[in-house]
Amino acid sequence: QSSVTMFGVLDMSLRYTKANGQTLKQLANDGLNSSRLGVRGVEDLGGGLKAGFWLEGRINGDNGSVDTSRFWGRRTSVSLMGDFGEVRLGRGKTSTRLHIDDFDPYSTTGLGDVEKVYSVLGSASDTLNRSDNMVQYFLPSNLGGVYGSVDVAAGEGTAGKKMYGGRLGYKQGPINVAAALQETTGTGNVKFKQMSIGGSYDFGIAKPSLNYSQNEFGAREQKLLTFGLTVPLGQGQILASYTDAKANGAAESLSGVGDAKLMAASYVYNLSKRTALYTTVAQIKNSGLGRFALANSPVVTNGAKSSGFDVGVRHSF
Amino acid sequence: QSSVTMFGVLDMSLRYTKANGQTLKQLANDGLNSSRLGVRGVEDLGGGLKAGFWLEGRINGDNGSVDTSRFWGRRTSVSLMGDFGEVRLGRGKTSTRLHIDDFDPYSTTGLGDVEKVYSVLGSASDTLNRSDNMVQYFLPSNLGGVYGSVDVAAGEGTAGKKMYGGRLGYKQGPINVAAALQETTGTGNVKFKQMSIGGSYDFGIAKPSLNYSQNEFGAREQKLLTFGLTVPLGQGQILASYTDAKANGAAESLSGVGDAKLMAASYVYNLSKRTALYTTVAQIKNSGLGRFALANSPVVTNGAKSSGFDVGVRHSF
Amino acid sequence: QSSVTMFGVLDMSLRYTKANGQTLKQLANDGLNSSRLGVRGVEDLGGGLKAGFWLEGRINGDNGSVDTSRFWGRRTSVSLMGDFGEVRLGRGKTSTRLHIDDFDPYSTTGLGDVEKVYSVLGSASDTLNRSDNMVQYFLPSNLGGVYGSVDVAAGEGTAGKKMYGGRLGYKQGPINVAAALQETTGTGNVKFKQMSIGGSYDFGIAKPSLNYSQNEFGAREQKLLTFGLTVPLGQGQILASYTDAKANGAAESLSGVGDAKLMAASYVYNLSKRTALYTTVAQIKNSGLGRFALANSPVVTNGAKSSGFDVGVRHSF
Repeated sequence: QSSVTMFGVLDMSLRYTKANGQTLKQLANDGLNSSRLGVRGVEDLGGGLKAGFWLEGRINGDNGSVDTSRFWGRRTSVSLMGDFGEVRLGRGKTSTRLHIDDFDPYSTTGLGDVEKVYSVLGSASDTLNRSDNMVQYFLPSNLGGVYGSVDVAAGEGTAGKKMYGGRLGYKQGPINVAAALQETTGTGNVKFKQMSIGGSYDFGIAKPSLNYSQNEFGAREQKLLTFGLTVPLGQGQILASYTDAKANGAAESLSGVGDAKLMAASYVYNLSKRTALYTTVAQIKNSGLGRFALANSPVVTNGAKSSGFDVGVRHSF
Repeated sequence: QSSVTMFGVLDMSLRYTKANGQTLKQLANDGLNSSRLGVRGVEDLGGGLKAGFWLEGRINGDNGSVDTSRFWGRRTSVSLMGDFGEVRLGRGKTSTRLHIDDFDPYSTTGLGDVEKVYSVLGSASDTLNRSDNMVQYFLPSNLGGVYGSVDVAAGEGTAGKKMYGGRLGYKQGPINVAAALQETTGTGNVKFKQMSIGGSYDFGIAKPSLNYSQNEFGAREQKLLTFGLTVPLGQGQILASYTDAKANGAAESLSGVGDAKLMAASYVYNLSKRTALYTTVAQIKNSGLGRFALANSPVVTNGAKSSGFDVGVRHSF
Repeated sequence: QSSVTMFGVLDMSLRYTKANGQTLKQLANDGLNSSRLGVRGVEDLGGGLKAGFWLEGRINGDNGSVDTSRFWGRRTSVSLMGDFGEVRLGRGKTSTRLHIDDFDPYSTTGLGDVEKVYSVLGSASDTLNRSDNMVQYFLPSNLGGVYGSVDVAAGEGTAGKKMYGGRLGYKQGPINVAAALQETTGTGNVKFKQMSIGGSYDFGIAKPSLNYSQNEFGAREQKLLTFGLTVPLGQGQILASYTDAKANGAAESLSGVGDAKLMAASYVYNLSKRTALYTTVAQIKNSGLGRFALANSPVVTNGAKSSGFDVGVRHSF
């Protein structure tokens, strides 16, 4: 079984978060990358055809617990790959989540995670990040920079799970531009629609990125504009992001949803390719009835701030 | 630790099942083999003696979940092996389940799983497939084709768990014949008795098999006759089975138990030794008050049919 | 990923325990060592610096279940190691538990586990053995025999989890002496204090050890004196221990706490470095209102005895 590889990440940080005058000191599990354990492998079937599998699940390093509802919930898939691209069956990130990862310097992780200000707008959508029961198709990698994927997920009779979506992008040299769409059948058979369009350009001394996302559920709507920046610095890099999230009146009628601004800045110092030290400061400024919160923040009251700071180590294996 | 091997199966299929006019489309996890992850190893102790361990648990690839009550529930055992055979301690398949696997072309898995029409007859038996707390002894493999095993399981004070059983068989060249017996102490200290006798003959162009099983719990009785067929075809094989299950009057007084016929047919196309594409059609025809159902079928009403079809990929690693 | 090592133990025994005339026959999982599975690795960062990770969780081999609240609950940590020693973040054994392991011939495992007569005295301490949210510092190994560690754990707002502690010892040639202290913030913000001092001397033909522990929570106090003995014998060794546990009046007002004497004796026969057969006899004699019990013993009534015997196999991988 030489084809089986174990891999993972342990990311532990000392985290301090504050909201409404309450503070919390913690050992956190996802400062830079989410802690995880995985097993994967690829088999060459001949004639350019390959089969592969992937199991990956969350680990909470602070107490040794895991995701009890989905042990391998980050990804569980079997794939057939060839000149035609890849057909993948199972659970994993949707095309839209892959898109948002690409244009968020934080890859939707840690204190700076842009999805902390995304709302499913009361749709009961279970597919904001990942989806169960998916059939995915990925374009091959030899299309001159064009990349893309299509997702279809069976609902199996549960609201918030039936989904289809996809993304299409172009990445060549310093440039990367893409758009993604996703529709999930939510509560009352109403569609929760996500649309994202983004781009980044690597100037060498800095890589700015821009992404615009729009979430809709019936009359409820949320619009998010994210500006990201990655700057190589010495044996590491600076990460920064700014997101302006706006909810319309119908969305604001939902508990906890409102306008919000998310700011985050980090420095990552690489001890090796696998191991890094890092520090992040972040803040969410809510308006109106918004109660968006940073990861592991104390409870936020309507329109209040959620702030955080952490310093940690990320070790990949 | 060169002695540790990770292994497993990811088997994902697009499955369509129907009962009472209701249909269900799913991503299923066990079309041909059950999806699983395992770790095992053997240590040579010298003098012909070996020690070994085996951990193996279920994976639900559609959503990344596992068996939450028994993570390593397929098998968890430590063994001492030598000229005398094998002594194995832990949880795993009982001798009777090993017998039924051998003479069911589907190895009690997927839409064609013969055990879908087996009943524990209200005995609360927890040992139909596997048993906790087992001490097993397996005969050595050099007895001129004779094979066999004996099981004893501690009940630890819970009904349906105290068990003893065994099987004895003869396999040489194309022939394989065996019988298995098992008694589990069920509800009210009454024994749930299982008896199976089966045989197969490999003609080369086809391997037919026949198995007769009898389940008893007090006055309740179920008799099952299974005819199986495996036919090599091109780079794959055809599997087919037909089971006629009959319950006596006392058994039929139990909710859901009745006479039933299970039919299944499949084609398996091997892309390699490890990876196969397959398709299966199956149906259970219930009579009287029977409500036996195919895996993941919608709920069946008394005496109604349960039908299914799937197409999938099985990848072993 | 050549740096990833899987390891573990499967330890299964036939165990017979008795209390109040009730007996229990079981397949047990921790006769000599606790059954477990782990993954660990070390990365050389250059300049004497290393990074490492460690995941280790309990396995119940009798039924394939795991620790459902903390899958990797034995240890989940990431470390930076160098000339300065080791900084470790995550969950694992506290310094006090490491101390007690060292001077208990049973390393707090199995029928002879000395901690079966340790009480947290109603403090709700969750740190008797291991602690979540820990930052640990270990002295380097080149201090001429001096060893030690310091622990700090964040409470994250839960009683029984905020903790600090440490140990300091000297181990050179046959001698090992150490002391450990730990304070956990328990119910009502009252500190649960543990203090241990112990020593062992390896005479070659026998290694006696002595440990004294004191547990305090407000007016409640427990004092424990353990005498241990390890005697090499043929291809194995004899283990024996005797513990005298005394509770003061305030402690005895707690349900189940009282004076107790724990006696245990074992013979371990090594088939190899990794695999051993063993047998243990043990007994706890409670006084007053004490209800301390051996592992998996039937329920003990006030002041009664709990006795046990097992014979098993321990296989490490």
